Amino acid sequence: MAIHAVIMAGGAGTRFWPASRAKTPKQLLPLGADPVEPLLAATVRRLAPLIPPANVTIATGASLVDATARVLPDVPRAQLLAEPVPRNTAPCIGWATATILRRDPEALIVVLPSDHYIPDEAGFLRVVGRALEGAKLGHLTTIGIVPTRPETGYGYIEVGGAFQGDLLRVERFVEKPSHERAEEFLREGKHLWNAGMFFFQGRVMMEAIEAHMPELGRGLYAIEAAAARGEEAKVLAEVFPTLPSVSIDHGVMEKASGLAVVKGDFGWNDVGSWAVVYDLSAKDSEKNVRPDRSLSLDSSGNMIVAKRSFVVTIGVHNLVIVETDDALLVCARDHSQAVGKAVQSLEAAGLDVLL
Amino acid sequence: MAIHAVIMAGGAGTRFWPASRAKTPKQLLPLGADPVEPLLAATVRRLAPLIPPANVTIATGASLVDATARVLPDVPRAQLLAEPVPRNTAPCIGWATATILRRDPEALIVVLPSDHYIPDEAGFLRVVGRALEGAKLGHLTTIGIVPTRPETGYGYIEVGGAFQGDLLRVERFVEKPSHERAEEFLREGKHLWNAGMFFFQGRVMMEAIEAHMPELGRGLYAIEAAAARGEEAKVLAEVFPTLPSVSIDHGVMEKASGLAVVKGDFGWNDVGSWAVVYDLSAKDSEKNVRPDRSLSLDSSGNMIVAKRSFVVTIGVHNLVIVETDDALLVCARDHSQAVGKAVQSLEAAGLDVLL
Repeated sequence: MAIHAVIMAGGAGTRFWPASRAKTPKQLLPLGADPVEPLLAATVRRLAPLIPPANVTIATGASLVDATARVLPDVPRAQLLAEPVPRNTAPCIGWATATILRRDPEALIVVLPSDHYIPDEAGFLRVVGRALEGAKLGHLTTIGIVPTRPETGYGYIEVGGAFQGDLLRVERFVEKPSHERAEEFLREGKHLWNAGMFFFQGRVMMEAIEAHMPELGRGLYAIEAAAARGEEAKVLAEVFPTLPSVSIDHGVMEKASGLAVVKGDFGWNDVGSWAVVYDLSAKDSEKNVRPDRSLSLDSSGNMIVAKRSFVVTIGVHNLVIVETDDALLVCARDHSQAVGKAVQSLEAAGLDVLL
Repeated sequence: MAIHAVIMAGGAGTRFWPASRAKTPKQLLPLGADPVEPLLAATVRRLAPLIPPANVTIATGASLVDATARVLPDVPRAQLLAEPVPRNTAPCIGWATATILRRDPEALIVVLPSDHYIPDEAGFLRVVGRALEGAKLGHLTTIGIVPTRPETGYGYIEVGGAFQGDLLRVERFVEKPSHERAEEFLREGKHLWNAGMFFFQGRVMMEAIEAHMPELGRGLYAIEAAAARGEEAKVLAEVFPTLPSVSIDHGVMEKASGLAVVKGDFGWNDVGSWAVVYDLSAKDSEKNVRPDRSLSLDSSGNMIVAKRSFVVTIGVHNLVIVETDDALLVCARDHSQAVGKAVQSLEAAGLDVLL
């Protein structure tokens, strides 16, 4: 069975405004430890030893296809799938899977988010290899990240006994917990973070969709039939917007049986805010992350991103300062999770040019 | 005796970087309560009821003449004096006085700085009127600002008895004091701030210069003789750089006798830092001074100046944020007196394009 990858790259990422904009969402920005490589490019490069770009499919939005292609010169353009509208992950993964099965009915498929950071790339590939073993055995398989803090922002996976070795049973998927429950999870050690990584035989996933999301199954069948007639574009535009907007977790994984999970412990980071980018970045002696064209006087703990201006800071600490051609953000680092809210306010105020 | 004004407008004003630059120094910026009117334009307008622009002479630097003319359309271009090099206030006032005496040997002259802010304009004109009475009587006269705090950044004038009414004797000029002495001054009430405003008959000032700064007197005589031959420009370029670089305070006022002073109590402000501009400006409900094109979330006490960018602040307080086309300053408001130091660092680093 040949291995294929589906990278979900439709995200908006308003949390990184003003660097992230509608036309340059989070996954197209260099927000990992490397100040140049976009997260999406890193995701494809990281996978290359196991899955060459020729076997990578990118699921993104129609408005992002060109920008995405520029970041991924080695991925065949035909494998950039443009969703007419965002319909959450179940239709995304279903359509991508069906598309891959056309070329390779025996396809073994890895589904990954496009905008996460993984420092231990060798460790990551080892765990992916184990998860693929589970998929080969017919399991819908996922990677569960070993928690390092009582995080309330993620869904969790409760782990059961072992199928074999480190291929474990999934007892159940758990919604984002309260702080108390999250601390219990951390103590008990039976729960892992759901990082949205899935491994399966394409055929098995299609069967699971038909069984648990028949409406989606019918829609995908209609698109496939149209593709066979050479009318995919036309029917896709009609049908895709009608597909149920449901996540693969809710729509399939939580209902399917025989789910497997492999523990992941490779420093996974979903890069959720400017504060996280600060943590990942190289700092000067005063713990500032700043460009060469800057002067820092009596200032520490600041994160400065500025392409155009020379930046001078005096007597300021723990700020995030991000300047683009038409916008400037000055934010307390410990408030950087509120940036998304600010973008919503701009949207509400009708300042679309800034989005 | 006709009344003439000399406005000293040669300042650099690095304290307002990045708004103030070599080509747009402090006096050309709108740093008073009016967010549009440059301080220099306000100085000339404020004086107009007493001295029309036709009688105003501006002493500035050669590189600033054009920018200065744009700000003062009503001042005759011939009355913009371009100093070949800055030589402090004694040569500046001496040359301007000699120039005015050519047109009006009986001239009564008011010398004012170009970059101060005065809220009570009617009160200011009343005090100027009284100081001119002193000048008519032949005194070298100054205005002493009634202190409102133990300021250590200004020189002081010790007041003696009265010549007549509120025209008082100057006992002596006092250097910038220690904090202790400044507090004594404030308690005793015998000391006033030296705001660099001078009132005199042109002839009297020339005699005082000849008596106390003979070298300057000779230089000015050479320039005058050349002017009579129509060779002023040539000789000015040769002679002016050789004049002693001394302030009128040290060179003349501290040595002359019969000096008079009038108390000024009209809310004078020398606009010494961004923090002062913040104090003078209109604020929103969270005490922010900010442009329409900004969004302020959980932020207070900030001063934002940005022509190009839309500015979003989140969770930040008491900052000065100033953005120009090529530079950005983010400074704690209570550190804004250090901005000049930052500019010196840029100069030392050879970043002249930013000066």
